[in-house]
Amino acid sequence: MCEANAYFTQNGTQTLIMEAVDKVEPDEDGIRLVSIFGEQKFVKGHIHSLSLVDHKVFIAPA
Amino acid sequence: MCEANAYFTQNGTQTLIMEAVDKVEPDEDGIRLVSIFGEQKFVKGHIHSLSLVDHKVFIAPA
Repeated sequence: MCEANAYFTQNGTQTLIMEAVDKVEPDEDGIRLVSIFGEQKFVKGHIHSLSLVDHKVFIAPA
Repeated sequence: MCEANAYFTQNGTQTLIMEAVDKVEPDEDGIRLVSIFGEQKFVKGHIHSLSLVDHKVFIAPA
């Protein structure tokens, strides 16, 4: 499985917001994260960057 | 390894732009893709969405 962990990145600090993320999709004024377990989370932000070999997705404020 | 393939998505069509992508980072008015082989590519666009279990990263026009 190639899921990743999603981190909210702001002012140089990174906060884990969801583990085992499968899908990330735009949703109104933010994005919706969906984990491999079907858990969903909405975040006011956008996908800032990826580091896939490290299993990391970085989300920045909208 | 958990790299993905990057697709440019526009008007409902998807074009493969890079395989084995590791990092995607903002770079001036676009993004820079870096593969696990160190190959780099600049694209005028932003990360639109992810489908990580399918190993897919979708890039939309800037």
